[in-house]
Amino acid sequence: MQARQVEAPLRKLMGPGPLNIHPRVYQALTSPVIGHLDPAYLKVLDQIGDLLRMVFRTKNRITNAAPGTGTAGMESCVANIIEPGDPVLVCVQGYFGDRIRQMAERQEAKLTVIEGEWGKPVDPETLEKELKKNSYKVIGLVHAETSTGVLQPMAEIAGLAKEHGAMILLDTVTSLGGVDVRIDDWGVDAAYSCSQKCIGCAAGLSPVSFSERAVESVRRRKHPVRSWYLDISLLDKYWGTERVYHHTSSSTLNYGLLEALRLIEEEGLEKRIQRHTLNHKALVAGVEAMGLEMLVSPEFRLPSLNTVKIPAGIDDVKVRSYLLDTYNLEIGGGLGVLKGKVWRVGLMGYSSSAENILFFIAAISQALALQGYKTDVAAGLSAVTKALDK
Amino acid sequence: MQARQVEAPLRKLMGPGPLNIHPRVYQALTSPVIGHLDPAYLKVLDQIGDLLRMVFRTKNRITNAAPGTGTAGMESCVANIIEPGDPVLVCVQGYFGDRIRQMAERQEAKLTVIEGEWGKPVDPETLEKELKKNSYKVIGLVHAETSTGVLQPMAEIAGLAKEHGAMILLDTVTSLGGVDVRIDDWGVDAAYSCSQKCIGCAAGLSPVSFSERAVESVRRRKHPVRSWYLDISLLDKYWGTERVYHHTSSSTLNYGLLEALRLIEEEGLEKRIQRHTLNHKALVAGVEAMGLEMLVSPEFRLPSLNTVKIPAGIDDVKVRSYLLDTYNLEIGGGLGVLKGKVWRVGLMGYSSSAENILFFIAAISQALALQGYKTDVAAGLSAVTKALDK
Repeated sequence: MQARQVEAPLRKLMGPGPLNIHPRVYQALTSPVIGHLDPAYLKVLDQIGDLLRMVFRTKNRITNAAPGTGTAGMESCVANIIEPGDPVLVCVQGYFGDRIRQMAERQEAKLTVIEGEWGKPVDPETLEKELKKNSYKVIGLVHAETSTGVLQPMAEIAGLAKEHGAMILLDTVTSLGGVDVRIDDWGVDAAYSCSQKCIGCAAGLSPVSFSERAVESVRRRKHPVRSWYLDISLLDKYWGTERVYHHTSSSTLNYGLLEALRLIEEEGLEKRIQRHTLNHKALVAGVEAMGLEMLVSPEFRLPSLNTVKIPAGIDDVKVRSYLLDTYNLEIGGGLGVLKGKVWRVGLMGYSSSAENILFFIAAISQALALQGYKTDVAAGLSAVTKALDK
Repeated sequence: MQARQVEAPLRKLMGPGPLNIHPRVYQALTSPVIGHLDPAYLKVLDQIGDLLRMVFRTKNRITNAAPGTGTAGMESCVANIIEPGDPVLVCVQGYFGDRIRQMAERQEAKLTVIEGEWGKPVDPETLEKELKKNSYKVIGLVHAETSTGVLQPMAEIAGLAKEHGAMILLDTVTSLGGVDVRIDDWGVDAAYSCSQKCIGCAAGLSPVSFSERAVESVRRRKHPVRSWYLDISLLDKYWGTERVYHHTSSSTLNYGLLEALRLIEEEGLEKRIQRHTLNHKALVAGVEAMGLEMLVSPEFRLPSLNTVKIPAGIDDVKVRSYLLDTYNLEIGGGLGVLKGKVWRVGLMGYSSSAENILFFIAAISQALALQGYKTDVAAGLSAVTKALDK
């Protein structure tokens, strides 16, 4: 056997992530590899902590990038603040809420699940009813549900959690860096995200942030955290002032992450969030003007991840294969109950751009036409341009 | 705050890892980011599986790179094949054997520990005595103990495990890709390594391999694997033919890993192992000729990681800071009970080279001279040259 050289087609990535990344991030990925305890590298980790605090809008000391993908971040939050027998409430409105549920089960939480409709946010009234009935240590939920394209309004839920003394565990995988995330204002105790979505880096790292209350609850655990790799007390000894070796931090990925965060700082977080919102509105305008429908009602739409309903009779896989093979365009298919029902169109980080929106409208119109489905592509393109002009 | 641009000093990395990587690996790291379910990317993962089977010398179907550092690989092995109450025997002869012990404790194994002297391998007689006394599901041990520089002879231990029906869980973090590892011949059931040592890639991935027996034992578990992120049944559904989404695999790191594995294939695994052995012998010849001592006796020395005793009265930290600040040279300090007692000098992958050995001998002689410790550097350098000439 002779393995072939790396063959990496140049895709236009408009799915749920990874997205295309900025040339400066590619450049940073080739910075010389360096030791995980090198003083020069520890400065890099400190800067990443500072910039992540800015993006999470938090003062939390324990804020850095866990050594794994977003799912590792989810596990670090779940496995640290939940121990066997803990009363935990998980809100499941999509695939990733359900993943939190599965992880909490594996930690043997005393679990209550509020199951909601996929494509809708958590209903605060249902939550309040449950909180009045039972006392919970942790409420787990998803801020930006990547499977449905729903953005969860947080103010009311944050108030309820505070009133009832429950900690909040929050998935910000598809919001952080492109959508407003306010860890301290909302009183979130454990939050995680990923490097490859709105943050704009390659995949492989998971920004996390833990409140003092969360850290204190880890300190008071009766059982040790079941994951040694993601034990936040051990990670803290490495990220913090003690600098005790825990794992061989990937300088390659963290150099990329630092550069991606610097790009956020340069653009300005507020402006970046506005850009994500504007481009989202332009995409929706185009999609609707060409005659397609969005899954989520306007007030709950996630700017970074747009779920477009697949018209009846259309072969989902055929469309996506055509886009990939002919135009090098990746969009996402549906997950779970939405499989075959929606496309997931990501506009995140560097990939949230006017040219990507126009290209998507043009390309999807052609893919649909091949299956005999006519759209008003001229109206769609013109609606994009008009929306961008605002 | 304005974060500074990435500042990455160009170090000569001769510690326990990461090591310097080949220019072709750097280039591969900048291959265009691609989706984790893109058909082109799934081919990359398949190739990585094939090449890792070659390096591990195994036919194990479940052989690929887990999404985390070597410690994630350790946790994936421990958390999958050990469940609460399982009788497990862990051999601790250094820092990483102890890490296996800690992880097995967190899985609530019924744990027995054989504690041996740091700097020596596991004693087969002690092991046999224990195996005759009690029955074990798993024996956990370290093939290449990164903290002591000991290479564990495996033939006898493999025979004992087989005879007593115990599975072997093996740490090959510092051996895979530079030292002979024979998973199938030794009947190893769960093995893990890392990407940044003898394999020659950047840090962030952990090659793992599971035997059919291990997979079967996971299938028969009474309790679900406590880690969702590292559950090998879920990883198998992604790596295998089902291609079910599990995590967003880092195309960046895996492109780098594929290129590093291709370099191993091009060099030839046998030749690469010989190169590591030859360079190790040259380093030892130089170290001893200049008047320093090795920690480990000749028959148990690990070619990839050389532990050199720090002469009495020498300030360890001062030496290492001087080497880093003046010559951009990183060597490792001691871990655990060997802290301040040894230096750890890595010769792995691309970094296992004649020039690195000569440079190390020259630099360490100067660092010692600054503390008034005289070495016979001329004899050391000449011994290196003579040993390399063989």
